[in-house]
Amino acid sequence: MPAITYELKKQDESSNARLVRVTTLHGSCDTPAFMPVGTQGTSKGLLPQAVADTGAQIVRGNTYHLLLRPGSELIAKMGGLQSWTGWGATDGGGPMLTDSGGFQVFSLGNLNNIDDDGVRFKSHIDGAEIALTPERSMLVQEQLGADIIMAFDDCPPAATQKVNPRNTADSPVASSATRAASESPTVMAPADYARRVELANDRTLRWLDRCVAAHRASGRWDEQGLFGIVQGGTDLEQRTYCADRVTQHDLPGFAIGGVAVGEGSDEIRSVVEHTAPLLPSDKPRYLMGVGYERDIVAAVRAGVDMFDCVLPTRNGRNASAFTSTGLIRLKNAKFADDPRPIEPGCDCEVCRNFSRSYIRHLFQANEMLGGILVSLHNQRQYQRQL
Amino acid sequence: MPAITYELKKQDESSNARLVRVTTLHGSCDTPAFMPVGTQGTSKGLLPQAVADTGAQIVRGNTYHLLLRPGSELIAKMGGLQSWTGWGATDGGGPMLTDSGGFQVFSLGNLNNIDDDGVRFKSHIDGAEIALTPERSMLVQEQLGADIIMAFDDCPPAATQKVNPRNTADSPVASSATRAASESPTVMAPADYARRVELANDRTLRWLDRCVAAHRASGRWDEQGLFGIVQGGTDLEQRTYCADRVTQHDLPGFAIGGVAVGEGSDEIRSVVEHTAPLLPSDKPRYLMGVGYERDIVAAVRAGVDMFDCVLPTRNGRNASAFTSTGLIRLKNAKFADDPRPIEPGCDCEVCRNFSRSYIRHLFQANEMLGGILVSLHNQRQYQRQL
Repeated sequence: MPAITYELKKQDESSNARLVRVTTLHGSCDTPAFMPVGTQGTSKGLLPQAVADTGAQIVRGNTYHLLLRPGSELIAKMGGLQSWTGWGATDGGGPMLTDSGGFQVFSLGNLNNIDDDGVRFKSHIDGAEIALTPERSMLVQEQLGADIIMAFDDCPPAATQKVNPRNTADSPVASSATRAASESPTVMAPADYARRVELANDRTLRWLDRCVAAHRASGRWDEQGLFGIVQGGTDLEQRTYCADRVTQHDLPGFAIGGVAVGEGSDEIRSVVEHTAPLLPSDKPRYLMGVGYERDIVAAVRAGVDMFDCVLPTRNGRNASAFTSTGLIRLKNAKFADDPRPIEPGCDCEVCRNFSRSYIRHLFQANEMLGGILVSLHNQRQYQRQL
Repeated sequence: MPAITYELKKQDESSNARLVRVTTLHGSCDTPAFMPVGTQGTSKGLLPQAVADTGAQIVRGNTYHLLLRPGSELIAKMGGLQSWTGWGATDGGGPMLTDSGGFQVFSLGNLNNIDDDGVRFKSHIDGAEIALTPERSMLVQEQLGADIIMAFDDCPPAATQKVNPRNTADSPVASSATRAASESPTVMAPADYARRVELANDRTLRWLDRCVAAHRASGRWDEQGLFGIVQGGTDLEQRTYCADRVTQHDLPGFAIGGVAVGEGSDEIRSVVEHTAPLLPSDKPRYLMGVGYERDIVAAVRAGVDMFDCVLPTRNGRNASAFTSTGLIRLKNAKFADDPRPIEPGCDCEVCRNFSRSYIRHLFQANEMLGGILVSLHNQRQYQRQL
């Protein structure tokens, strides 16, 4: 049996949207699937059962953070990330995906060097110098033991860095590089951007060859499904080129990377609608790090099956709740005596038991339960939408 | 029907220990009962259902903290502390007790004045000057709406202040007075201590008269049971004197206060074994703020029914777990690769699902789930012991 099996449950007639069941060694998930992010081996403040109760069937771990602390060897020794973190109803754990660690090296690590072999960086925790290569990323992800592992890729920034690069790390840490990017937005010249995208694509493809070889040699090919990643920035020709090459590998799933790294919603949509149909229709498609509802809905219509983002928990900890009528800021004084739940009619545990008044009080009193409750609601809100 | 009914289920033959069912307007609790403390309207980091799942049937709120923020009027407007905080299985909420606020005024407030009328203090949050009197304490507790409310008393410190005064506030805040006490321990002269205890007793008794009158006049007498408090320090004659006077009021329950304020375990035991039998055997007996197992066990044998303390959650947040073989510090490096649960054989959700290795990682990574998990285990440990 392959590491990942794909079963089409229903195909929408008016769009590319579909319902798929993706089955891994640790169980199945039904798509469209939103994966909560557990950066350091936990969805911040939430017991895994509470995450499962929101409807999540698969979660995403962060290779970069776990590699630095506590180290992937330790997690392997403890039986793998799924059971160690208590994710899943059985002793063996539930479905999980890890990223390659590459993206966080760029956004959080103190990057020393990047070349065709891989990257060298200093840990944001203790300054230790660490090298990450395609082979090392595969080894670390094999030690973590997730059901779906991601190829090590080179993700170019957006041409216009209006905002921070996509934050897939659910962490308050910001590297000097990230801060610099947010403080002094830069616009790359078109020719420079084109060169950077081409370079990233070529590197991504060469690194994918090495990831495939390393993962095949590990003996874990039939236990952990390796997904290839299509880069190409906002250049649709480069997207076509990369998708064509990546899908020449017989992999159990494919991802669209390098999206939501600073570009606007229109560009995200253009790239996703162009790229998704280039990926095999009989394999899961994963759009990395895209978390706003409008973008997710457009991507589902384009045929994307899987999503992940830190927005539900990060916003939750900041007292920002997602509702069907938009974001509400629960610290606002007008909620002090509001007896209504966050979202009237919501079926989540939070909305069934707690008022806006109480949740606002928790934030005023710096009680961590405030962030916990809004994170839980937000996670349920995402699961309800999909 | 009275606010509190008492039903003896079983009387131990070799000691004063007994099993009692205490019934309030919002449900019952079976004793010996340990009440988790929700200082600011929440057991820190825990959903109320998780607290109930540990076996807790009644919880304690803090009048001082809630009076300052968000204010008892607001909580009254929102329907009362039980339902506002989501405590209890029904819409109306579950059994709850509030203290009088007096103790925290002494330990946390910036005390400006204490006289026979009451106390004046500055809020530790914003410096606002606030007066608390027996009548105001009753009013605030009536607005909070707990099932059991406590008389406003004068609690003298221990003769030898070796440690901080009893910390019943589950809060990191320490007032300058508290810090001063811990930095420069003082020993009161015996005559000074005797005078302070006598003064406190007389004040406690005069204030109790006023509490009873105010609560009777409120119209809430049959909804909220007022417990009288016996003071007297470590002076057993003063304990007898105070118990004799306090129990002349026809109240639905009585408490032993002024214990665990800095004195040793032997003195605690001496006071409790002396005082408990002086309280009516057909009413609940509550020992305030005593949280160590040895002291609780001795008190149960002496006939005490109810307990509260912040130790399970405060220690939990500091990675200190209670086990049958003593406290273990989960930040210790030796637990890094320890696959065992906190306490092998424990039936709690934490011990069934998580290893010491994982919990240590959470503390190393500053993940709030670490404190949440150990708090949950500790609360279950307390409930299992009783």
